[in-house]
Amino acid sequence: MIEGAVFRLRWGGMSMEVGRAGLRFAPVILAGGSGTRFWPRSRKARAKQVLALDGEQTMIQQTLDRLTPLASPADVWVITNCLLDETIAEQLPKVPREHILSEPTARNTAPACALAAFLLEKSEPDTVIGIFPSDQVVKDSARFTEVIRAGVALAASGDRIVVLGVPPTRAETGYGYIEQGAVADDATKIAGGIVTRRVKRFTEKPDKARAEEFLASGNYGWNSGIFLWSARTLAGAIREFCPAMAPLLEAIAAAYGTDEFTRVFAELYPQCENISIDYAVLEPRSKKGEMGAEIYCLPGDFEWNDLGCWSTLHENMADCSPEQAAFANVFDETDPLCVSIDSNGNYVYAPGKVIALVGVNNLVVVQTKDALLITTRDRSQEVGKVVAELKKAGREDLI
Amino acid sequence: MIEGAVFRLRWGGMSMEVGRAGLRFAPVILAGGSGTRFWPRSRKARAKQVLALDGEQTMIQQTLDRLTPLASPADVWVITNCLLDETIAEQLPKVPREHILSEPTARNTAPACALAAFLLEKSEPDTVIGIFPSDQVVKDSARFTEVIRAGVALAASGDRIVVLGVPPTRAETGYGYIEQGAVADDATKIAGGIVTRRVKRFTEKPDKARAEEFLASGNYGWNSGIFLWSARTLAGAIREFCPAMAPLLEAIAAAYGTDEFTRVFAELYPQCENISIDYAVLEPRSKKGEMGAEIYCLPGDFEWNDLGCWSTLHENMADCSPEQAAFANVFDETDPLCVSIDSNGNYVYAPGKVIALVGVNNLVVVQTKDALLITTRDRSQEVGKVVAELKKAGREDLI
Repeated sequence: MIEGAVFRLRWGGMSMEVGRAGLRFAPVILAGGSGTRFWPRSRKARAKQVLALDGEQTMIQQTLDRLTPLASPADVWVITNCLLDETIAEQLPKVPREHILSEPTARNTAPACALAAFLLEKSEPDTVIGIFPSDQVVKDSARFTEVIRAGVALAASGDRIVVLGVPPTRAETGYGYIEQGAVADDATKIAGGIVTRRVKRFTEKPDKARAEEFLASGNYGWNSGIFLWSARTLAGAIREFCPAMAPLLEAIAAAYGTDEFTRVFAELYPQCENISIDYAVLEPRSKKGEMGAEIYCLPGDFEWNDLGCWSTLHENMADCSPEQAAFANVFDETDPLCVSIDSNGNYVYAPGKVIALVGVNNLVVVQTKDALLITTRDRSQEVGKVVAELKKAGREDLI
Repeated sequence: MIEGAVFRLRWGGMSMEVGRAGLRFAPVILAGGSGTRFWPRSRKARAKQVLALDGEQTMIQQTLDRLTPLASPADVWVITNCLLDETIAEQLPKVPREHILSEPTARNTAPACALAAFLLEKSEPDTVIGIFPSDQVVKDSARFTEVIRAGVALAASGDRIVVLGVPPTRAETGYGYIEQGAVADDATKIAGGIVTRRVKRFTEKPDKARAEEFLASGNYGWNSGIFLWSARTLAGAIREFCPAMAPLLEAIAAAYGTDEFTRVFAELYPQCENISIDYAVLEPRSKKGEMGAEIYCLPGDFEWNDLGCWSTLHENMADCSPEQAAFANVFDETDPLCVSIDSNGNYVYAPGKVIALVGVNNLVVVQTKDALLITTRDRSQEVGKVVAELKKAGREDLI
C-alpha cells in the first residue's frame, strides 16, 4: 500500500504531545479534495487548494492567512492526502509538519472531523475546533475574524454547535442550505451582538424551484462548510451518531505520536464510513429536537465564495455578480496581451500567450502545458466529466 | 532598401535564357499574399501558402503537384515576396530558383501577371500563361487537369482569355462573380466538349441580396482567380488597359537575367499601380464588346475551395457543406486526444495538447507557441482585425 509506505517514512519514530496549555481554538483545515472542476489546471497532485487561482497566494495559504488573527499556525491542523501533503507542507511552513495528516483513503469530511475531535479531546477537550474548507474565498476578512471570534466564544460556552450560513444571493442549486429559526437572544449576547439563530434543518442541494423558494423566504443560508464546536462536543456527537466510526478514530487518535500510528491509520481509516459531517452529525442532530436545540447559525456575511468552478472564479476575479460577469472578460494573467473584438464575459487562462477573441461570449478557455479546455460559463461545472472520460481512457497522466 | 539588397545577392551576375523551345504552357503561381485570416498560424513570413493547413503538403506544394500532369516544374514561375521566397524555394526544389521572383513591394495581381506576360512574350509569345493562386484547394484533381488542358488549348487557339467559373454552392459575399452568357459552340469544340460560355460581366463581391440572385439565376460562377491566356494576348491586354504600367514591366522584363535586374525591379515595380488583374484587365475587356467578345468561361467544377479562412478550412477538413459542418468537430492533428461532451461544429488546432470541449458549438480555436485565437466559424473571416490591432500596438513580432 503506497500511502502507508510513504506515511511511515514521514511519521515513524515520532512522539509528541498534542495541544498546548490553555489552547482555546484549533482550526482544522480540510484539504483532501481533488477539485476536478478546475481541470486542466487542477490535477490529483495539484488540486484547487494548492493552486493560486485568484491571486498570488494559493487557496490554502489564503485560508491560513485568514485564520492568523484568531489562532497561531502552531495550533492549526490540516487533513489532506499523500498526493498533496508535501506541497501543503511547503506552502504552509509555519504549520507543524506533524499537524499535516494524510488520509490513507479519501473518506469525505466526517472521519476527518472526527479524527481532529479525538486527537484534541485527549488533552484539551474544551478547545474549540473550527472546521475550514481549504478552497474558499472570503473578501471581507475583518468581518470573517469578527464572526469566527464570536462563533468560538459561542462554541466554548457549552454543548453547542455553531454553523455559518452565507446569505444567499441567487437560487444556487449546487449548495446545501441551512433553514434558520428564531433568534437566540442568549446566544446573540455571547456572540457579542451578532444575530444568532437556531437551526431548524439542513437541506442538501435543492432543485431550482426549491432553491428559488429558499432564496425568497429569507430564512435560509448557504451551508459554508465552516463549523465550530468544542472537541468534547464534536467527539460526543461522533460517538452518538456514528457509533461504528467512533472507536476506529479513537484508536487512530490513541496511536498518534507513536511508532504504530502509520500502521493503525492505514488499517483503520479506510474502514470508516465515507460520509460528510453534514449527513453524519449535523442533520441527525438537527432532527433530534424539534428545533434542533443545540445548533446555532451565525451569519457568514463576509463576502464568501466557494470557487466551485471556472465560472465562479470568473465572477470572483471580475469582482461582480453572475449577471455582470456576462459583460466582463477576465484574462487571468499578470501582464496579458489581449485583443478582444466584440467579445464579452469570457474567462481565459493561457499564460505566456497573446490572446485574441473575435465575436465570442461567455466562454471559459484554459490552457496548460498539456491540455486545452474550452467550455462555457454555464457548463463549466461539468468539467469533472472530462476528468471522468480521461480516467476511463486510462490517461491517469492527465488527471 | 532591404528587399533590394537581399535580391541583389541572389540575382547578381546571373544570366539566363527565358523559355524553352516549343514551350506551350507556363503556369505562374501567385504567392505573394500575406494571409492574415489564418493568424495565428499564418504570419508575414509564414503565410497561408507555405503552411500545411489541410494535410501534409503545404498549399503551394499542392498547387504545384496539381499542375505536374500539365507542365514541367522547370516551366513554372512563382511570384512572391522576400519574406517567403526562401521558404518557397525549399518547398518547391524542382522549380528553378531563378523562376521564383520576389516583388520589391506588394502590388496586387495585375503587375505580377504583367511581369510574367512580358518575361515570356520576349522569347515565346505563343506560350499559354496560366495564373494560379497558391492557396486554393482542389479535391478533384483529375477534373482539374481535364479542364485546364482544355483551357490551354482554347487560350492557344487565338486572342482569347479563359477564366474559370466555379459553380456556386452558396450565396457567398466574399468572392467575385462571373456572369456567363451563351454557350460558345466553336470554343466548346476546341475545349474538347467541355461547355464553354462567353463572359458577360465580372462583378466584385456582391451584397447578400445580389449574391442570392446570382446563386438563383444559374448564370453566375465564382471567380476562381485562375486565368489562361497566351503571353501575347496578356501582354497586349496590359498595353491596352494599363498603359502606365506596361512600360515599367517591359523594362523589368528586359533587365531579367542581367546584372541590372535587381536594381531595375526594385526601382520600377513600386511605381506600378496597386490593382488586381480583374479590375485592370478583365473588367474593362469584358465591357468593350457588348458580349465581352474574347473572354470565355470554363466550368471550375473540380471541387474548388479557396480556404479563405478558418471556417472554410473546417468545412474542407470535415469534407462537408457549411450546413453539415455544424455537426462536425475537427481536431486538426495527426493523433489527437480529445474529449468532446455535447459539442459540435468546432475546429480546434492545438498541437500536442489534449483537447476538452464541454457544451460548445461552432467555435474556432487555434493555438500556437505564442498565441491563442478564439472565434466562431461565422466570425473567422474577421481574424484580420486582430492582426490590424496587433500592428497598431506595435507587435510586429506577432503578425
